[in-house]
Amino acid sequence: MRSPGVLSVEDVEDPALPEGGVLLRVKACAVCGTDIKMLEAGHRDLTYPRVPGHEVTGEVLNAGSSGLRKGDLFQVWPGSACKACSLCRAGMDHLCPQVRIMGFNTDGGMAELLAVDDPSRLVPIGDSDPVLLTLAEPLACCINAQSKLGVGNGDSVLILGGGPMGCLNAFLARHRGADTIMLSEPRTERLWPVPKGLFDHVSEPKGDDVRDMVMQATAGRGADVIIPCTPNVRLDRKMFELLSPGGRLCVFSGPRHEDSPVPIDVRDVHYRELMVVGSYGNASGHGREAVGLLRKGADLSWLFTGRYPLDEVRQAFAHASGRTGQKAVVIL
Amino acid sequence: MRSPGVLSVEDVEDPALPEGGVLLRVKACAVCGTDIKMLEAGHRDLTYPRVPGHEVTGEVLNAGSSGLRKGDLFQVWPGSACKACSLCRAGMDHLCPQVRIMGFNTDGGMAELLAVDDPSRLVPIGDSDPVLLTLAEPLACCINAQSKLGVGNGDSVLILGGGPMGCLNAFLARHRGADTIMLSEPRTERLWPVPKGLFDHVSEPKGDDVRDMVMQATAGRGADVIIPCTPNVRLDRKMFELLSPGGRLCVFSGPRHEDSPVPIDVRDVHYRELMVVGSYGNASGHGREAVGLLRKGADLSWLFTGRYPLDEVRQAFAHASGRTGQKAVVIL
Repeated sequence: MRSPGVLSVEDVEDPALPEGGVLLRVKACAVCGTDIKMLEAGHRDLTYPRVPGHEVTGEVLNAGSSGLRKGDLFQVWPGSACKACSLCRAGMDHLCPQVRIMGFNTDGGMAELLAVDDPSRLVPIGDSDPVLLTLAEPLACCINAQSKLGVGNGDSVLILGGGPMGCLNAFLARHRGADTIMLSEPRTERLWPVPKGLFDHVSEPKGDDVRDMVMQATAGRGADVIIPCTPNVRLDRKMFELLSPGGRLCVFSGPRHEDSPVPIDVRDVHYRELMVVGSYGNASGHGREAVGLLRKGADLSWLFTGRYPLDEVRQAFAHASGRTGQKAVVIL
Repeated sequence: MRSPGVLSVEDVEDPALPEGGVLLRVKACAVCGTDIKMLEAGHRDLTYPRVPGHEVTGEVLNAGSSGLRKGDLFQVWPGSACKACSLCRAGMDHLCPQVRIMGFNTDGGMAELLAVDDPSRLVPIGDSDPVLLTLAEPLACCINAQSKLGVGNGDSVLILGGGPMGCLNAFLARHRGADTIMLSEPRTERLWPVPKGLFDHVSEPKGDDVRDMVMQATAGRGADVIIPCTPNVRLDRKMFELLSPGGRLCVFSGPRHEDSPVPIDVRDVHYRELMVVGSYGNASGHGREAVGLLRKGADLSWLFTGRYPLDEVRQAFAHASGRTGQKAVVIL
């Protein structure tokens, strides 16, 4: 990316081995909704020119002084944090004021080689599929959100948007013991590759359809948890009315400028004990948890509806941008 | 209370022993800020005529078929819930759609006798001071809030309002391992009875004084937790700016009608991972936890700055309403 809207495939200089760091040969790098947003409209944390890509797996090409072995496979945590501030020490290294994010502030994984400044950002994936393990990063975002939301036994969960993040959140909610998983998605063709049973109920966001689905599925109580996985929703009063008493809503997708601020009925928040919590990216601990979960053999390969070589990175972006399929991944 | 603003001391008929329930002789009943609000302006959950009082301890006068012993001392959980709905089963019995609250929907503890419909609402206090144990109810409200907020090791906590709820929240935050406890309170005379060390920093809400206090005490990071313990604050942008990244704000005091809705910057909530969570009353589990904490010998008797006999209940309300002292309690 040279500027907003300009994505090209170029020969670039090989990155140098960082002092104390590692040089990886990229195996796979998936396209995130945020990559699309960055291309279309820029991003708060993006500087140009930039090699995008923050959902990356790779093998060690030059281990430097790290002690790692050449050829070993790793997933890369996208952040490079200071490790010393109170947020880093509290396990919130993704909120470190000095964090630099690969694909945003530093070059990312849509390239043959990737320089990683700090070997502790690498999570070993053993003999697991490097394509599948690119899902560790988006799954870690879901782990971050669902930890804050306390998703657990018996919860009813409403997911807005049936793209990769909606599907991964559903997968994780099920894993954490959620009882009823509901989806609102306007493009039902998008759900064709999705296995039966990932969502218990699906509705299009038309008229009162979502409300009717939620109230029927929860015997009138409302959803315990709502996770908007699309920028195309506004956190308006209608959404709060879908929450059960004690219900929790995550600001998971970054709201558009025109959708913020929103008026929130804090009396309703008080008397019904509602929670609104933001989630942005993931901490390194969430990343390790995600790799562990994927390595236990989660069957999520159906999520990859588009596989591309590096010189078709623009096609990969177009696939993700169309929002008709699911995940696009560049495989090297 | 016969109507908003009308509080009188009257002879009333003795309550009957409820079927399966217990009749208590009230030992002490403290005045809550909500009692004052109810008297001044009514309340969402209040019906008239009503004996107020929901911070109550008493001794068994007639045990009925409960198996309890006459003379044993108990603290009373104010709610009577259905015990069968999903919220009750999930430990959120205070949010039960059928809950009836003593002093709001049923007669409360500002009387010689109190009918309790369900013996499981009674928490034994052994030989503890029945006056001190009236604090179990407001302390349980703090436990509810701080559980949701996850107040714990190393947190910096800003409390708005140095009345009984502000002091109890500070006491509890310290108990849970909070590091720095800051207070904003306009009436410093109110803090005269408060032991040194309960608050690390105190500021009056004038100009940038609170902001300066928070930023100095947290090295510019902001408060990890904010708990407004007064209805006299609006949850405006200024308050959110006092939160650290990952910071949590509780809607603890019921906001006034004119202070809701408030515009909330959901982009800030997203990118800084802020949490806004409501807390209203307490579940029976929080009540049991509060009794346990107080029985371990917490020295909080300094909180009772006004002790009154039952026929001076109006003086007790006036003491609490003045918001110059701390807790007023009616002792029988």
